[in-house]
Amino acid sequence: MAAFAVLITVSDQPGILFGLTKILADRQANITSVDIAHHPDRHSEIYFEFTVEGETEALVAELRGVPGVSGVELTPSFSKIYGKRIIIMGGGAQVGQVALGAIAEADRHNIRGERISVDTIPLVGEENLASAVRAVVRLPRVRLLVLAGSLMGGDISNAVEEVRAKGLLVISLNQAGSVPDVADLVVSDPVQAGVMAVMAIADTAKFDIIRQQKRRY
Amino acid sequence: MAAFAVLITVSDQPGILFGLTKILADRQANITSVDIAHHPDRHSEIYFEFTVEGETEALVAELRGVPGVSGVELTPSFSKIYGKRIIIMGGGAQVGQVALGAIAEADRHNIRGERISVDTIPLVGEENLASAVRAVVRLPRVRLLVLAGSLMGGDISNAVEEVRAKGLLVISLNQAGSVPDVADLVVSDPVQAGVMAVMAIADTAKFDIIRQQKRRY
Repeated sequence: MAAFAVLITVSDQPGILFGLTKILADRQANITSVDIAHHPDRHSEIYFEFTVEGETEALVAELRGVPGVSGVELTPSFSKIYGKRIIIMGGGAQVGQVALGAIAEADRHNIRGERISVDTIPLVGEENLASAVRAVVRLPRVRLLVLAGSLMGGDISNAVEEVRAKGLLVISLNQAGSVPDVADLVVSDPVQAGVMAVMAIADTAKFDIIRQQKRRY
Repeated sequence: MAAFAVLITVSDQPGILFGLTKILADRQANITSVDIAHHPDRHSEIYFEFTVEGETEALVAELRGVPGVSGVELTPSFSKIYGKRIIIMGGGAQVGQVALGAIAEADRHNIRGERISVDTIPLVGEENLASAVRAVVRLPRVRLLVLAGSLMGGDISNAVEEVRAKGLLVISLNQAGSVPDVADLVVSDPVQAGVMAVMAIADTAKFDIIRQQKRRY
């Protein structure tokens, strides 16, 4: 099975995604990624990554024939371009320092062929943070979450336990509240937390977060 | 039309997205966002945001009936949780400094009710950067791109012109190469570039990047 990525320009009307997925289903294509990009003053774009047996030429021609479609082009895949993602959330001062460490370390690995993106959202409040933690596992390509704050607990800790049960790695800064108790790893220095986060998911690094379970640095 | 978000747990097999979009199309739902999250050791999840007339109870029941679906739940939307996105790309040292400024400024706006995420990818090389710039407009919720480097030109500048023609705002650090000539705004201090990037897309700020067209700071 070969992997393909296509970018499809469409008009903004109900039923188009149905028309496109029907063609992919008819050809037994397994869709691995999909995104819709809306643009206020021009046509929307739908992006698919999929694996399928055989050639794509006939498939591309069929996609072009779906009503509402104005263009179809084969394109490089997001996983090749943006790769694995780390998400850092919490208070701005600390999120910035963790990002600084993570970006510098990701740079070193990306130069050697890795593709690691470092994404952040500065956010305060128990309810906001708990929702954002729960939503992380719905985002594509996310491997690890860093919680960067000074006091995090309550429902945020419940959310951390839920996403860890779903296989997400979680690093917490050493801080007040119960979040450090439920994280995979606790780190006091925010820059080092960012560096370790990247080391934990880089194939080019030797750091095994499973061997570090529940340690505190 | 009311807006809804649903998270659907599915088995990993061809045709499921087709089955789900058929039901949404039958009810004239307009799908505004879709994501697939694959998990190595458990069921995949498909996430939809859509607008539709009337109640969703019957719709949710129909989605539950699609073969391969094991769960459907209504959930808060990504746009409410992660909001607008700024993407910063380039060399690690500079990406880190721009991120520091952008995260600190996003924190100030998010406290007042905005939702701005700051996403980064440290990346070198003309070809890599040009592909990543072109791919930015395919990512959901991205409003502005910051190019943070010391030398960027050639095909990166072509890519910048293409994405600006599609409505993306682009800020460049003051640097060697032709990218500063094709950006909306050029800034010398990377921290200030990050702050201005957030001000440009925050509804809570008064900065109008259109009035700043082609200025250099």
